[in-house]
Amino acid sequence: MCTTPHPDARDAAERFLATNPGDPATYQRVAALEDDAVAMLGELAGLGDPTGYVASGGTEANIQAVRIARERADSPRPNVVVPESGHFSFQKAADVLEVELRLVPTDDDHRVDLEAVRASVDTDTALIVGVAGTTEYGRVDPIPELGRIADSVGALLHVDAAWGGFVLPFTDHEWHFGHAAVDTMAIDPHKMGQAAVPAGGLLARSDELLDELAVDTPYLESTAQATLTGTRSGAGVASAVAAMEALWPDGYREQYVRSQHNAEWLADALEKRGYEVVNPTLPLVAATVPRATFDALRAKGWRISRTATGELRVVCMPHVTREMLASFVGELDRLEVRASVPVASDD
Amino acid sequence: MCTTPHPDARDAAERFLATNPGDPATYQRVAALEDDAVAMLGELAGLGDPTGYVASGGTEANIQAVRIARERADSPRPNVVVPESGHFSFQKAADVLEVELRLVPTDDDHRVDLEAVRASVDTDTALIVGVAGTTEYGRVDPIPELGRIADSVGALLHVDAAWGGFVLPFTDHEWHFGHAAVDTMAIDPHKMGQAAVPAGGLLARSDELLDELAVDTPYLESTAQATLTGTRSGAGVASAVAAMEALWPDGYREQYVRSQHNAEWLADALEKRGYEVVNPTLPLVAATVPRATFDALRAKGWRISRTATGELRVVCMPHVTREMLASFVGELDRLEVRASVPVASDD
Repeated sequence: MCTTPHPDARDAAERFLATNPGDPATYQRVAALEDDAVAMLGELAGLGDPTGYVASGGTEANIQAVRIARERADSPRPNVVVPESGHFSFQKAADVLEVELRLVPTDDDHRVDLEAVRASVDTDTALIVGVAGTTEYGRVDPIPELGRIADSVGALLHVDAAWGGFVLPFTDHEWHFGHAAVDTMAIDPHKMGQAAVPAGGLLARSDELLDELAVDTPYLESTAQATLTGTRSGAGVASAVAAMEALWPDGYREQYVRSQHNAEWLADALEKRGYEVVNPTLPLVAATVPRATFDALRAKGWRISRTATGELRVVCMPHVTREMLASFVGELDRLEVRASVPVASDD
Repeated sequence: MCTTPHPDARDAAERFLATNPGDPATYQRVAALEDDAVAMLGELAGLGDPTGYVASGGTEANIQAVRIARERADSPRPNVVVPESGHFSFQKAADVLEVELRLVPTDDDHRVDLEAVRASVDTDTALIVGVAGTTEYGRVDPIPELGRIADSVGALLHVDAAWGGFVLPFTDHEWHFGHAAVDTMAIDPHKMGQAAVPAGGLLARSDELLDELAVDTPYLESTAQATLTGTRSGAGVASAVAAMEALWPDGYREQYVRSQHNAEWLADALEKRGYEVVNPTLPLVAATVPRATFDALRAKGWRISRTATGELRVVCMPHVTREMLASFVGELDRLEVRASVPVASDD
């Protein structure tokens, strides 16, 4: 889910390579840029007066969201309810933070099963997670309903829009702070936002939530630090701002349309060849392809991956062009023809 | 404690800006570079057959060391014994990981008080931390003795050499895996190692220790991930290797000698002016300067900071030249003269 950074983002990253937003009183220019980044992420995510920071990526943002919820929980044994379609960083968060992870199944369309969520929550539930653009199938969970369930048990609601956040503004999905009672969100400029790594994003509805993360910082001329890491990359922050300034909203809209059409083209091409395809509601295609074919494609250098159940997974990131996909399908055809012809052998 | 990256490190960072060592099966070239980085860090730190990874920085490495110790502890309420001179990331680690932090005082030379360490440990102690190059005074704790105390209670020993690790090989200090029974170490290429941020380092004595951090990774073509973050910066990894290839060992030795002489020159200049100075055993000078003078220096753009007790702190990083320090002392003289002359006023 990484991509080539936008040229402006790359330039900015190179200019700010030797700065550290982890020490904002010393690196004031990059600290001001981080405020800009958070403001722009808030605009994308329907959050006026946003608070948050540029994280190392979605994993850090997800861990921090779970941490905020753990700190606010009354329970000595808090649990976190996460769809099975949630990113493995929630497993990492549960390990690191020692909270109970309750994985909830998804329905036939790969969205979280709301009845199962209702059955999983209790008074020890600190957080419900909804995914807005799942890693495997690009699905958006029913965020407003999850918010209502969270409210019913006094839990927080976190939305993982790490991948989806930069395409969802151009769709009809309900996914953000303006649509539902979301408390925190992961939204990564370095994925669909075309910033350079590391530029993840953590947003919170209020300072009060973010303050749960604060640790005092002696010998820095700032007084507290909410990030999970210490020294951070100014390159990530500057490149996030540069990418958003260059692309929000028109450039991102055009990219979304291109990527979505590419995904639909690929899904169609695979379906025509008899593969079982998961309909791409966002620019991400999953299809049932034999394992040997998958391995052969990777061996030929295609940067593809698999879902947990073994389907081929193609993410139509900005650097992925129609020509690339056509060449990919051509390769697939050649491999499949070869696979169906018995190999002559001396053995 | 950040500095200008070495030109080779900057070039490498720019070339690898769009790669992700968090997905090693896909980004194989940067994954191979990470193996090189760990091997070279092991060479610096006296550890044959090292295991570890390029972290986002010292904070992540310190958190992960505490996490390894927590996972291995038999106790349900593990504690971690850390010198008061330890970096605030240990406070962050304790908050995140919910372990008890036992801060131990330092002696008159700002090194950890061994009697106090002995009095603090018990059978619930999971980890003892020694600092090899403290953030405030550049002191090296008695690492071999700390190792013996750790052994006596079945605790692990972590050395925080995040800043010191790239200068200590050229000194007589005992600080590394070859000198003592060290289990884990933080050693940051992006500080004295002159790599680009983010390039921290976590080393461990064995795979078994690092495996405590592993989380399964579905939909990546690698099977487990030990890092705290997910997607990571290939720029940091590539630039760490480039810096170490360019500078280890002669370039680092020359830099250490330059930096150390600079620190001694500055300490001497400050002492001559009547300030109370902490003798710089590594390239870091602390001195008692009036708060108003400190604030005036920062207002003029000097990137200085203070110790917890308010002393001026000047870190002689590679970009800090003798000319810079002479200009700094000149500025200090002008400010102090001004401060000692009563200002004529109409009030």
